[in-house]
Amino acid sequence: MLAFEVTARRGAARLGRLALDHGVVETPAFMPVGTAGAVKAATWGDLEDAGAGIVLANTYHLMLRPGGETIRRLGGLHRFVGWDRPILTDSGGFQVLSLAANRKLSEVGVLFRSHLDGASHELTPERAVELQVADFRVDVAMALDECPPWPASEEEARLSMERTHRWAARGREAFLRTRPAGRSAQFGIVQGGMYPSLRAESAAAIAALGFEGIACGGVSVGEPKELMRATVEATAPLLPAEKPRYLMGVGRPDDLLHAVGKGFDLFDCVLPTRAARHGLLYTSEGALAIKQARYREDPAPPDPACSCPTCRCHSRAYLRHLFLLGEPTAAILLTRHNLQAVLDLMRAIREALAADRFEEYAARAADRFSPGKV
Amino acid sequence: MLAFEVTARRGAARLGRLALDHGVVETPAFMPVGTAGAVKAATWGDLEDAGAGIVLANTYHLMLRPGGETIRRLGGLHRFVGWDRPILTDSGGFQVLSLAANRKLSEVGVLFRSHLDGASHELTPERAVELQVADFRVDVAMALDECPPWPASEEEARLSMERTHRWAARGREAFLRTRPAGRSAQFGIVQGGMYPSLRAESAAAIAALGFEGIACGGVSVGEPKELMRATVEATAPLLPAEKPRYLMGVGRPDDLLHAVGKGFDLFDCVLPTRAARHGLLYTSEGALAIKQARYREDPAPPDPACSCPTCRCHSRAYLRHLFLLGEPTAAILLTRHNLQAVLDLMRAIREALAADRFEEYAARAADRFSPGKV
Repeated sequence: MLAFEVTARRGAARLGRLALDHGVVETPAFMPVGTAGAVKAATWGDLEDAGAGIVLANTYHLMLRPGGETIRRLGGLHRFVGWDRPILTDSGGFQVLSLAANRKLSEVGVLFRSHLDGASHELTPERAVELQVADFRVDVAMALDECPPWPASEEEARLSMERTHRWAARGREAFLRTRPAGRSAQFGIVQGGMYPSLRAESAAAIAALGFEGIACGGVSVGEPKELMRATVEATAPLLPAEKPRYLMGVGRPDDLLHAVGKGFDLFDCVLPTRAARHGLLYTSEGALAIKQARYREDPAPPDPACSCPTCRCHSRAYLRHLFLLGEPTAAILLTRHNLQAVLDLMRAIREALAADRFEEYAARAADRFSPGKV
Repeated sequence: MLAFEVTARRGAARLGRLALDHGVVETPAFMPVGTAGAVKAATWGDLEDAGAGIVLANTYHLMLRPGGETIRRLGGLHRFVGWDRPILTDSGGFQVLSLAANRKLSEVGVLFRSHLDGASHELTPERAVELQVADFRVDVAMALDECPPWPASEEEARLSMERTHRWAARGREAFLRTRPAGRSAQFGIVQGGMYPSLRAESAAAIAALGFEGIACGGVSVGEPKELMRATVEATAPLLPAEKPRYLMGVGRPDDLLHAVGKGFDLFDCVLPTRAARHGLLYTSEGALAIKQARYREDPAPPDPACSCPTCRCHSRAYLRHLFLLGEPTAAILLTRHNLQAVLDLMRAIREALAADRFEEYAARAADRFSPGKV
């Protein structure tokens, strides 16, 4: 990375431009999740059409299949998957702890067995850097962290946070050693569970390491919405003002609006694409469950206000028909819509910030996207 | 329909133009199969990009879900699915006999239960016309036939053929009564099993009924390839020369080349798209099974000679990776390739016919696509 510029501030919210090796990302931005090198049921053309400026991929999945060596030999992750806009990869820490088998966590790192074939692997702060920077050559690499489960006691959260800090220092050192001619950026991750005093301690420790950006991890892990929001509110003001701030794993429209208001710039979540595959569409009037009988003969598009290819060409009746039959085409068409919906939301947020009417916009939009509705 | 013109004859092979309500189809043409109103893992945009001039949909599947009434109320099949080029629907006879439960076949028609929910339905020659012409409003409706299984004795094949002829007469009558201002065409189906004398009898009986086109049914039902080809060769010269000739259910590249050489104009088959979903790609060098270990780090596209979006953007290594993980995006990308491959083959056939070098082209291409290779 190359530069982050805040081009406007509206209260705590910010409009910005994040210049990365593969292009400039307008922030606030949402990163669709392409776990294993593809956003499920979408092509890269679909992502371009929906206006995605950056995507996220998972180090854990890619280190298992096809493996870092293979991706390196094939020219890096962009070339391997055929996408030339920015990519951020997570560090694999979260997935190792949620998916892998036979995990052994130690100060060195995590020893584990693949959930796919049982093969042994090791992930350390240094290995996470090697994979992301030397093998994948992504635009943004995340430092390896240890994400405590929810609920965790303050003592558990502290121990896990302190390890995260030691791993962050080792990861930063490895990054500065590995970094090929300043092409990648590295973000550190603030932990500390739902404890404001730990969050403050973690923000200070991570900020001191000189990362190009800072993430808030350990939220959206099963805690009640209000606790997530309280943690977002407590953490945001602790993060360096001049660096990009990434809120990990958050992607419900109402939560995006809230977190932008508190000063976050980047987001990722599987929710919009996963919800699509389960027949739940985001619309400007709230959520729409396509399987409902009321849409059986409904000739209207999912969202008459949406300009996505699905809404331009197809009725709720047709989409419901394909979805109920389990036709693979249903997942394609529904995913296109939700990608466009969440990326259009981010565009609208940026326009509202630019026009200095974000608060008014957020109030209106949050009502539309209130929890009951999405 | 409106008109069929043979624009060039090369031996038994023909180049033609079939003018239908929703557009002109250049023949010989392959019709991708969109069973329930969608080609699996493809969008209509994908079909347009690959150059599909006409698609096939299945009356049996559509009469069960969403039902003829629903499609009629939503403006017909084109409007329901969002495709404005020609559509041909089969009559449902073949699927009733292969998929439905509790079938009761009588002179009137077939009583059966849906394989989806057990609901009772009836399909008669008249009902097949009503569904296709009045409800779906397709460009080409097929007459209801009874397709004998393979193997069938000559006596079984004769009884089934004779019923097919009586149903064809009833279907034709219903069509001429129903046909909305000459917008649809109706094709009759020649049966007779693998018995040349029955085929001759059937061709004469069906030709006498004045259909706008004639199909050869009852092949590609499990018989050995040589028997299929012998039946194709025996049947083709019996069909009216001035009408379009449709060989049902045939879609292997080598069989397409063979049947075009014998004088068939239209084809359909689930094979190209089903093979794609199973990781088998048609290429100019023969078939390619993407899961093979040899492609693990292969940076080449599936077919360097192919211009499809998948070959333009993706390597065998990437496609293998997505396929092995069962990523839904794999089915999309592989389907795009096979659609393009089979439609490009038909384009090349038409160009060779136009340039009067079909025999030479077919000999070269059939070698590439010999059974061992595809």
